[in-house]
Amino acid sequence: MKELIGVIGAGTCNQNIYLTAYEVGKEIGKRGYGLICGGMGGVMEASAKGCQENGGLTIGIIPHKNKEEANPYLDIVIPTGMGIMRNLLIVRSAAVLIAIDGRYGTLSEIAFALQIGKPVIGLQTWEVSTEIIDAFDAIDAVQKATERV
Amino acid sequence: MKELIGVIGAGTCNQNIYLTAYEVGKEIGKRGYGLICGGMGGVMEASAKGCQENGGLTIGIIPHKNKEEANPYLDIVIPTGMGIMRNLLIVRSAAVLIAIDGRYGTLSEIAFALQIGKPVIGLQTWEVSTEIIDAFDAIDAVQKATERV
Amino acid sequence: MKELIGVIGAGTCNQNIYLTAYEVGKEIGKRGYGLICGGMGGVMEASAKGCQENGGLTIGIIPHKNKEEANPYLDIVIPTGMGIMRNLLIVRSAAVLIAIDGRYGTLSEIAFALQIGKPVIGLQTWEVSTEIIDAFDAIDAVQKATERV
Amino acid sequence: MKELIGVIGAGTCNQNIYLTAYEVGKEIGKRGYGLICGGMGGVMEASAKGCQENGGLTIGIIPHKNKEEANPYLDIVIPTGMGIMRNLLIVRSAAVLIAIDGRYGTLSEIAFALQIGKPVIGLQTWEVSTEIIDAFDAIDAVQKATERV
Repeated sequence: MKELIGVIGAGTCNQNIYLTAYEVGKEIGKRGYGLICGGMGGVMEASAKGCQENGGLTIGIIPHKNKEEANPYLDIVIPTGMGIMRNLLIVRSAAVLIAIDGRYGTLSEIAFALQIGKPVIGLQTWEVSTEIIDAFDAIDAVQKATERV
Repeated sequence: MKELIGVIGAGTCNQNIYLTAYEVGKEIGKRGYGLICGGMGGVMEASAKGCQENGGLTIGIIPHKNKEEANPYLDIVIPTGMGIMRNLLIVRSAAVLIAIDGRYGTLSEIAFALQIGKPVIGLQTWEVSTEIIDAFDAIDAVQKATERV
Repeated sequence: MKELIGVIGAGTCNQNIYLTAYEVGKEIGKRGYGLICGGMGGVMEASAKGCQENGGLTIGIIPHKNKEEANPYLDIVIPTGMGIMRNLLIVRSAAVLIAIDGRYGTLSEIAFALQIGKPVIGLQTWEVSTEIIDAFDAIDAVQKATERV
Repeated sequence: MKELIGVIGAGTCNQNIYLTAYEVGKEIGKRGYGLICGGMGGVMEASAKGCQENGGLTIGIIPHKNKEEANPYLDIVIPTGMGIMRNLLIVRSAAVLIAIDGRYGTLSEIAFALQIGKPVIGLQTWEVSTEIIDAFDAIDAVQKATERV
């Protein structure tokens, strides 16, 4: 069974965040892990792109009913048709989560992760708990994530 | 169609919070609204008890498969078998939410509410957004909630 | 806690089926039970109308995110945003189910009900199991349902 | 994006069905498709084993919260914690479904598939619709499935 690292963040983001998310995905792919995310744009797209372009397996669990809504950097798409309720599926499927920036959707995922005891690595994200493990850049985030897989 | 006020908070709590939650439920019942909650103990139980004992209709959407797991102060129980994923159902069903104290589960509900634009009244709860409307006691919370139904 | 009888059937139907579903709802209401259904048109609408017009409490668990999509004969609407996945919530919430006519959505509900051991009363519906209890008219269906609550 | 063939069937089965399911999985793997299933025992396990042992990627969407509950022949496990409600996720994720034998859980999946217009190939399974495409053995089933991807 493949170990998956979850990457969570908003569906739209500025270019700096996009590059950071790409670097996170790239590092996950280079280290041979799978990446699981929400399958849409922004941080999800950037991290999936970085991972897939560096040999990693990418999985997206999307809110929609149809696979066509997903970003194009996914090897496997799970279309749920259950809207943002799918957030919890990403959290449950990942061994550890890296939260990058993010808005309320990301906050719901961080909350679920902390509730069920799944480690969260934070990169410029919500500061709601001392349980979130701060990272200072993309490589540091992936390093801290892999130590917790 | 009955208007529902959602009450969210942890499944266990201290006596002060229990009393506050009871007062919130009581005020909801007295004003003729329905109350929807997660159907378990703590804040959910206290608020349902207060509402039901004051003539209000109470609804619990529980994580479990069977109704027997719910607290005894509910007129209607929806057993989901979907675990904490049911949190979003409470948020969607309520016209407005009152968050009392609470831990990570409550944080996930606040995040979902803010994401979909549902008003949140806060009583000694998570301070994660200026969009949360602070209340200073139970009656103030219900007053502010009913103004937003 | 109120005992709920589930009524399942298609979202569009001919007038005969509509009248039968109305009679089923009417009889549920007259006997003091609550009715739970999928909250949309056809059999769901007719049975909710019959029940509500005869003093019964009606609950609809709808596929959509917003309550506005529901039929107008519901006291309580649970908007799930999870599409037809909500079918199982209706099955779990009901003590017993009455299936009227119906297409594939109804078949999925019958299958779930039989899988989790919930009694199914059938009125001109799918004949997929000897476990389905046949009824010959609306009053007979409600009679057989109430015996199994 | 990888095309996935869904294999549905009961969590326990006799040896003949197990062998048939294994052959179905083997043929899916040999042809380079991914296999998605419910991740548990019986038909799900046999088909995942056959696929994985023949070079195919295997995905299991399980009812439980934890990956440990899944069968050992899966490359990717999605632990949902949502019980049999996860059945619809398998249907939505697959381009086409092969139903082998099966009981009520399988019937719910066939119903959902037919409802949303996803092709179903049947091998000694529920005969509830002329829309189900009969296959006479494992290789015929996979052949008919791949023609509909």
